[in-house]
Amino acid sequence: MSQQAVTPQSQDFSAWYNDVVYKADLVSPSPVRGCLIIKPYGYEIWEGIRAGLDKRFKATGHQNAYFPLFIPESYLKREAEHVEGFSPELAVVTIAGGKELEEPLVVRPTSETIIGEAFSQWIQSYRDLPLLINQWANVVRWELRTRPFLRTAEFLWQEGHTAHATEAEAEAETLQMLDAYADFAMTEAAIPVVKGRKSDIEKFAGALRTYTIEAMMGDKKALQSGTSHNLGQNFAKAFNIKYLSRENVEEFCWTTSWGMSTRMIGGIIMTHGDDKGLRLPPRLAPIQVVAIPIYKNEDERTAVLDTVHRLVKELRGAGLRVHIDDREDTPGFKFNDWEMRGVPIRLEVGPKDVQNNKAVLARRDIPGKDGKQFISQDGIVAQVNDLLNAIHDNMLAQATTFREANTHDIRTYDEFKALAEKGGWARVWWSGSNEDERKVKEETGATLRCYPLDQPGGAGTCFYTGKPADRVAIFSKAY
Amino acid sequence: MSQQAVTPQSQDFSAWYNDVVYKADLVSPSPVRGCLIIKPYGYEIWEGIRAGLDKRFKATGHQNAYFPLFIPESYLKREAEHVEGFSPELAVVTIAGGKELEEPLVVRPTSETIIGEAFSQWIQSYRDLPLLINQWANVVRWELRTRPFLRTAEFLWQEGHTAHATEAEAEAETLQMLDAYADFAMTEAAIPVVKGRKSDIEKFAGALRTYTIEAMMGDKKALQSGTSHNLGQNFAKAFNIKYLSRENVEEFCWTTSWGMSTRMIGGIIMTHGDDKGLRLPPRLAPIQVVAIPIYKNEDERTAVLDTVHRLVKELRGAGLRVHIDDREDTPGFKFNDWEMRGVPIRLEVGPKDVQNNKAVLARRDIPGKDGKQFISQDGIVAQVNDLLNAIHDNMLAQATTFREANTHDIRTYDEFKALAEKGGWARVWWSGSNEDERKVKEETGATLRCYPLDQPGGAGTCFYTGKPADRVAIFSKAY
Repeated sequence: MSQQAVTPQSQDFSAWYNDVVYKADLVSPSPVRGCLIIKPYGYEIWEGIRAGLDKRFKATGHQNAYFPLFIPESYLKREAEHVEGFSPELAVVTIAGGKELEEPLVVRPTSETIIGEAFSQWIQSYRDLPLLINQWANVVRWELRTRPFLRTAEFLWQEGHTAHATEAEAEAETLQMLDAYADFAMTEAAIPVVKGRKSDIEKFAGALRTYTIEAMMGDKKALQSGTSHNLGQNFAKAFNIKYLSRENVEEFCWTTSWGMSTRMIGGIIMTHGDDKGLRLPPRLAPIQVVAIPIYKNEDERTAVLDTVHRLVKELRGAGLRVHIDDREDTPGFKFNDWEMRGVPIRLEVGPKDVQNNKAVLARRDIPGKDGKQFISQDGIVAQVNDLLNAIHDNMLAQATTFREANTHDIRTYDEFKALAEKGGWARVWWSGSNEDERKVKEETGATLRCYPLDQPGGAGTCFYTGKPADRVAIFSKAY
Repeated sequence: MSQQAVTPQSQDFSAWYNDVVYKADLVSPSPVRGCLIIKPYGYEIWEGIRAGLDKRFKATGHQNAYFPLFIPESYLKREAEHVEGFSPELAVVTIAGGKELEEPLVVRPTSETIIGEAFSQWIQSYRDLPLLINQWANVVRWELRTRPFLRTAEFLWQEGHTAHATEAEAEAETLQMLDAYADFAMTEAAIPVVKGRKSDIEKFAGALRTYTIEAMMGDKKALQSGTSHNLGQNFAKAFNIKYLSRENVEEFCWTTSWGMSTRMIGGIIMTHGDDKGLRLPPRLAPIQVVAIPIYKNEDERTAVLDTVHRLVKELRGAGLRVHIDDREDTPGFKFNDWEMRGVPIRLEVGPKDVQNNKAVLARRDIPGKDGKQFISQDGIVAQVNDLLNAIHDNMLAQATTFREANTHDIRTYDEFKALAEKGGWARVWWSGSNEDERKVKEETGATLRCYPLDQPGGAGTCFYTGKPADRVAIFSKAY
C-alpha cells in the first residue's frame, strides 16, 4: 500500500481513477495486453456483487450452469447482426494439442450462440418452458483501448439466458432482470441508476430490444452498468430453438439474455470516490470496519489491543467484516491509508476509551468532526450496523443529488453542445433518425444513453430536428 | 429426465457412468470436442464443492484473486519440466482482434507461470510473506480421450498459489492444504481418501514434491481427487520471486500450489453410485429432500399438497434444500426418477398421513423397508437433519468398508498381476527405480498412486525387485 496521495478528481479524473485502482490495491498490471490481475481487495468486491446478484437470480427461479469457453467459429455467423457486432473483437484458437484445428475456436465474447444451440437440444415442448439459466464466466473481447474494470480484453461477468413460449413472457423476463439489476445497484452498491431502453444503434448485436441501467459517474459521464436484452425470435430462428405448444403446434421460442460484469466495480469507484480515494458502499466493502488501536507505550498497547480484540470479536460474531490494523505505523498514517482504501467505518480505541468503556466511530462518507461519534462499547454491534445503514443511505442520497444537479432539460442543439463541453446529462425530447443520432455523436461525443422507462408523457419538440417528439431521451458522454 | 434404467455397474461400469451423468441430467454434450455443458443439477454440486473448499481456504488465511486466462507462450518455457509436462496439451490463441499476434497466447492449463510473474512483482520483503492466494477459474488441457467430469478439455477448478520465506513453511502449507482437501472429501463428500505422496514419475511438472488424496471408485480403480505441490524454489528461480530477509539478504521464496476440480464430481458419482443410479452425499446434494404427495383424487390432492407445502416451508426455513415433485406422474415413476438422481431422502405424504399428523421418510442409502421410517410431522426439521447426518455417516462407512475390503497386502509380482486383472488396490513394500515403476505400469496398467503418509514403519521386501524397502506404496489402475 502506498502512502502517496491520489491525483485530485478535479485536476484529472482519469488520472485519479488510475491512481485509485492501483494504490488501493484493487488491480495489478499483467504481462498480457489488455488483461489485468484482480487483486484480493478488488476480487472481494466482485464476490459481494456475485453474491448479491446470485441471490436475486435464484429467488426468481434461475439456475446456474456452465457452457464451453470455446465456440466454433461457424456458430457466431448464424445470427447476422451478432457476428457483425463481435467479429472485430474476437480471440481465436487455431492450434490445440499441437495440431492446427480444422475449424478455429473463438474464445467466447458472450454465449448466446453456444447456449442457443444447447437450448435447441433441451427444449422439446411447452413443458420445458420457461427455461431460466445463468452462467458465471470469463469472456474475452479484444478491445483496442482498455481501462481497469471498465474495458479489459478479458472480464468476469454473469450472463443470463432464458427461453419462453410467448413474446409477452420474454418481455416480462427482460424487464424483471432489469429490475433485479436496478435493485442490486441501489440496495447494495448505493448507485442510483436510471432504467431505460437503448436506441436501435446502441442495442445489443442481435437483440430486438435492449434495456439498460445507466449511472452517472463523478465526472458526470454515464456508465452503462447492466443490460437486459429481449432477443425476440432472432436467436431461436438462427439456432432452431423450437417447442411443441399445448395445441401441438411447433413454434419458435422467444429468448432473452442479460449481463452484469466486473465493470460494475469501476462504476462503484467512479460513483462514490473522492479526492482522498475510494469510498466503498458498506454492503459490498471487503472491510466494513477497520479497527485502529491508539497508544503511546507498551502498557497502553496491551490494554488497548485487549479491548480492540474483544470488540472485533463481537462484531465478527455478528457477521461484520472487520480488520485490525496493528501495524507499527502512526495512527495518522493508518487513517489516511484506510480512507484511501475506502473503508466505511474507522473504529478508534485509545487508553481513555478503555477506562471509560467508550470507542470512536468515524465515517468515511462525512469528513472531519461531523463524521465522528463517541459510543459506548456496550451494544457496539447494533451501533455499527445502524451506522453502516446510515452511510449506505447517505451515499445513495449524495449520488442521487449529484445526478439530479447534473441532469439538464435541454431544448436546443446549442445548449446541448455547451453541456457536452461542460459535462452532464441532457434530458431531451427526441425524434431523430439513426442517422441524426450518429451525427450528434460525431459532433459532440455524446451518445443516446437510453429512453428512460419513466417518461413524462405528452409530447415535445425534438432539440435536434425541431420536429414533434413523443419521448424523452438521455444523452451524455459515456464510458 | 429419462425413465429408462441405467446399465448395471456389474455389467459395464463405464456404461453405467455414462448413463448416470446423462440420465441424471448432470451434463449435456457440446459441439466443442472434449468440452461438456455442466447442467444445473451438476453445477449445483460444484457450487457445494466450491463453498465447502472456499470456507476452508478463507479459514486458513487465503484470499481469492483473478489472473488472466491467457499466458504468453514464452512464460511456460521458463520452467523446463513444466513446459515439457504441459506442451502437448495446450490450446493456443494466434489471432486476436482480426490480427495475427506477435507472440501466441496459451490458454492457461494451470497458472503457476503467470502467477509466479505477479508474485515477483508483489513480493519485496519478508513482511510480504507468506502470500496466500487462491483462484477459482477455468483451465484448458487438450486431452485426446475425454470423459465427463474426469477428463475434459476445459474444466473448472481452484488453484491455490502461495509463497513463503522458508522450505519448512512451504512444506507445512502444502500439507495443510492436503489436510483441507481430505477433510472436505470426508466431511462433505463422504469420500474416505488416502493421503499420500506421489512418486517422482507421477508428480506435478515442476514440483519438488506432490501430495495427493486418492479415493477408491466403485470399480476398485483409484481416482486422484486433489493434489498439493511443494514447488521448492523451482518457480521462484524461473520467475525471480525474491524477498529481502530480516537480515537484509535477498533470498528466493519457496512456493506451493494445490488444486481440486470438477473431477471431484466424477469421484462422488463413482464412489457412491449403485445400480439404481446416483447416490449424492447429503451435504452436497442439490436436493436433499424430495417431497412426493400421494393421492387418488382431487380432494385428497388438495389436502395432501397443503400439508406438503407446510412441511416443506418448515424445512426450507431451516436452510434445507427441498424440492416438491407435483408432476402428474405416478408415485412409482417419481420414486424411481429421484432414486436415479440420487436424492438422499424422499418425503412421502398421503391422505392418512394428513389425518394422523404423520409422514414417511425413505433413505436412498438403504433400499426397501429398512430405509423407511414413519415420523410425526412435529419436529420434522430435527428428524430430517438427524437422518441426513446418519446417511452421510453410513455412506462414508460403506465406502470405507469397500475400500478396505479391496485393498490387499501383496508380496509377489504374480499376486500383483492377478490383482491388477481382478481389480483392487495393492499395498506393497516398494524400493524400485523410476524405470521399474514404468515397467510395472506397462506390464500391468497399475500405477504407483502414492506413498501413504500413514506408514506402517519398519522395513520389508519390495514385491518387484526383491530388495529391502523402507516404505509402503499403493498401486492401482486409475482414472
